[in-house]
Amino acid sequence: MDKIRSGAWPPGMRLAPQRQLCRQLGVNRSTVVTALGELSAMGLIEGRRGGGTRVADLRAAAAGGTVSYRDGTAASDSRAASYGDETATSGGRAGSYGDRVDTSGNGAGMDILPVQPAGSWNSYVEEGVHYPNLPTVQDINRLEYEQGLIRLGTGEPSPGLLPGEAMTRVLAELSRQTLPPLSYEEPLGSPGLRRAVSSELAKNGVQADPDSILITSGALQGLQLIAVGLLPRGSTILLEKPSYLYSIHAFQSAGVKFSGLPMDEHGLLTDRLAREARRTKAAMLYSIPSFHNPTGILMDAQRRQKLMDVTGELGLPILEDGAYQELWLDTPPPLPLKALDREGRVLHLGTLSKSASPGLRIGWIVGPEPVVRRLADIKMQTDYGASSLSQLAAARWLEGGYHEEHLQRLRARLRQRRDAALALLQRHFAGLAAWNVPAGGFYIWLALDKPVPLRTLFRAAHKAGLLLNTGDLYDRGDSRHLRLSYVYASPAELETGLPILAGLIRKLQRPGS
Amino acid sequence: MDKIRSGAWPPGMRLAPQRQLCRQLGVNRSTVVTALGELSAMGLIEGRRGGGTRVADLRAAAAGGTVSYRDGTAASDSRAASYGDETATSGGRAGSYGDRVDTSGNGAGMDILPVQPAGSWNSYVEEGVHYPNLPTVQDINRLEYEQGLIRLGTGEPSPGLLPGEAMTRVLAELSRQTLPPLSYEEPLGSPGLRRAVSSELAKNGVQADPDSILITSGALQGLQLIAVGLLPRGSTILLEKPSYLYSIHAFQSAGVKFSGLPMDEHGLLTDRLAREARRTKAAMLYSIPSFHNPTGILMDAQRRQKLMDVTGELGLPILEDGAYQELWLDTPPPLPLKALDREGRVLHLGTLSKSASPGLRIGWIVGPEPVVRRLADIKMQTDYGASSLSQLAAARWLEGGYHEEHLQRLRARLRQRRDAALALLQRHFAGLAAWNVPAGGFYIWLALDKPVPLRTLFRAAHKAGLLLNTGDLYDRGDSRHLRLSYVYASPAELETGLPILAGLIRKLQRPGS
Repeated sequence: MDKIRSGAWPPGMRLAPQRQLCRQLGVNRSTVVTALGELSAMGLIEGRRGGGTRVADLRAAAAGGTVSYRDGTAASDSRAASYGDETATSGGRAGSYGDRVDTSGNGAGMDILPVQPAGSWNSYVEEGVHYPNLPTVQDINRLEYEQGLIRLGTGEPSPGLLPGEAMTRVLAELSRQTLPPLSYEEPLGSPGLRRAVSSELAKNGVQADPDSILITSGALQGLQLIAVGLLPRGSTILLEKPSYLYSIHAFQSAGVKFSGLPMDEHGLLTDRLAREARRTKAAMLYSIPSFHNPTGILMDAQRRQKLMDVTGELGLPILEDGAYQELWLDTPPPLPLKALDREGRVLHLGTLSKSASPGLRIGWIVGPEPVVRRLADIKMQTDYGASSLSQLAAARWLEGGYHEEHLQRLRARLRQRRDAALALLQRHFAGLAAWNVPAGGFYIWLALDKPVPLRTLFRAAHKAGLLLNTGDLYDRGDSRHLRLSYVYASPAELETGLPILAGLIRKLQRPGS
Repeated sequence: MDKIRSGAWPPGMRLAPQRQLCRQLGVNRSTVVTALGELSAMGLIEGRRGGGTRVADLRAAAAGGTVSYRDGTAASDSRAASYGDETATSGGRAGSYGDRVDTSGNGAGMDILPVQPAGSWNSYVEEGVHYPNLPTVQDINRLEYEQGLIRLGTGEPSPGLLPGEAMTRVLAELSRQTLPPLSYEEPLGSPGLRRAVSSELAKNGVQADPDSILITSGALQGLQLIAVGLLPRGSTILLEKPSYLYSIHAFQSAGVKFSGLPMDEHGLLTDRLAREARRTKAAMLYSIPSFHNPTGILMDAQRRQKLMDVTGELGLPILEDGAYQELWLDTPPPLPLKALDREGRVLHLGTLSKSASPGLRIGWIVGPEPVVRRLADIKMQTDYGASSLSQLAAARWLEGGYHEEHLQRLRARLRQRRDAALALLQRHFAGLAAWNVPAGGFYIWLALDKPVPLRTLFRAAHKAGLLLNTGDLYDRGDSRHLRLSYVYASPAELETGLPILAGLIRKLQRPGS
């Protein structure tokens, strides 16, 4: 009742089903039933056509006003559109292949319907400029905090792989002298951290002085800044297909269109590139050359040079996502595209999230000074810069040699995990799917021999205790792939989860299922 | 030369004047002259019509291509538009009352002109969706890192007022046990910090359970999320005029229009509100009821209730910016609007930036659960959440009682600083301007008796060693106000700076100047 009185549950909000309320409030079913009965008797909630129980609008009732309901289906229809390459994103809102877009962030039926034209938030949550996450992504974001699920595709190292102890030593080191006051940092980020990143980049053949480096709150924010800072609405970017970029909305929300290019085992196919760039008047190419997300593909040195040549002739800028570059397992990858760049044509993204600590939220963009200054200006308008405390800790982490030491240990552990995962796949997926042997990064791209309805598989897997990253997150039209990760689920969890997954896939592929 | 070879200075970038290069590179004038001569002899730079020296486009020259320059003036004209209330922001780009928009983030003549249609970044930095900061704001952001300037208007506590030592104790406390691994936090933010914020809010009469609280990377990010998450392009928000919101571009970049309302010494005038809300079909009211930025005005309890009543009748949602609420100096302010809200109609913003540490980048939004969930979903898409390390430190800071202790000390010191500033104003500005006596917050709103050209005053002040926040930042049409702050410049600096400022104003107000 407090939630209703304080407005946390506003008028018109549909309550979750009773079972879910029990879970949310941590009480048993009969308590919920009693409470709902009381609230209903007090007129605070009411049953409504279309089903479900909603918070009553006392004010409207008191004023004798007519409460007009819009139909929930119609409201969501106006947002549904088909995804795909070169979707015109400036017009309608895009949902995902006909699934309802659930703006409540809660896939389990807690749905918001408009109650009255003003004074209610219900229309507001549907009307902002920014797209909601894909339903599957919203589900994943929420379910990641559900206990006991085996997360087969999660793209972050499990807590056990993160350097809790070494990071504690960094903090202890910092607290040994009095901290500098945690003021705002310069627009480009703390000079100390930029110097440390500059040295780090030099190890990978990238010459970038601190004035060419912008510190961001993770690489994702870098993408966001580039999307709103450098590209006009309606421009097109080329990218590998599938790609991580399809799973987020940074570019689509800025009105940018995608045109996907095929890959082979050596990376992006460059022959289609020139034609597509001209046809779409592409503004930029986005690529993950090292340990591609989601396929794990490593672009070889020859392909990298070819890519630089072809895009050089076109004068096409490149956005190189180097998030996984340090995470090689067998041998270091070829030089980043940025190291081959003599014209300032490549923007390079890096991050500490995939190796050291996602929670530090520290990434960087390397590029020509006028470009990083423009992005820094937007960053100042967005959040006044990344956490100074994180920047202090990250600089110490890099300079103190903690990072290099951690990487070496992490590589050894990831190698073991990868090999264990591959052995399990051999045992359970032979004859059912094919897969790559990743030379680094986090992912195995599982290619099923026959298609399955992926959203159905996602739901069935959730019921069976598995959380999946299905291929359609990375290529809307896909119905044959799963992104598997060996960095979150432990080898023991994979040993439990993979045979269950194989069983579910077999069942869904059976004719007539 | 390294900067050119690596592309940090891309083709077509205009070099800064020699004097500025000396400063930037930390070398003397003759070294710069010699170096430029050598670069020119090597063909790496070239003089160009329109003046200035630019990085040569070697590739175009090698290919025998024609290098076509767009005219710099024309390029900037396409971005110039007049500001003001209800500017149609969806069309052209907005500059500031005819001043050139300098996208290089450098007001001193380092300018970027397009060289070739593709393959150069020059057009890109002008074409993103997001507006650049106002020229004066860009200047301020940059000049704040220039040594020796007296910052008369800066809206953050000076390093000496920040709790460096207490924050060091927090870190030491955290490092005494092994840190939890710094993974990503839940979409709403760390549960521990949300519980701590919830208790903090309760002290101010706001009942908000942790599920109604979203942790943001500072309050500015909260505004950004609301701008893109809740408001369709073309909607209008009402706000006090002048307002902090005019100085940032969060809402304008999302295509939201402003309609400013007048204030008196008790706050926003509510009589005009209803008419304006109906006329503009306003989507929201933004207000800073406690120690308003930039005027320092405290809305009294009666006006708050009136505001809630009027907006309640309209069903108009309110965005309450509570950034300065804790920073009362004489007596605590009346209850926040959120505490008077029974319908979930108020979103409330809070932050640790104004009191504890801007560099933590920790703020929060309190509102109905469906609204904060929608905003959390966008935050996940923007930067995957605020720094976990900052969240850990902030939770410890609040729970450990450090915050309350710091606030008490801070209030005493700000009281002294305010009184010293008021005494100086009495001495140097009597007969030249009027001002308020702030009961809290950071600001004195100096109302000049006669108008002055504020951009000219800004430049003259900079030459005289002063950094100003002129009134036009907070109300585009203003030419009579300055925002003074007693929290950054020390009393000694104010004693030096204020008489200089008074002299400059007198000079500019002299007829024929």
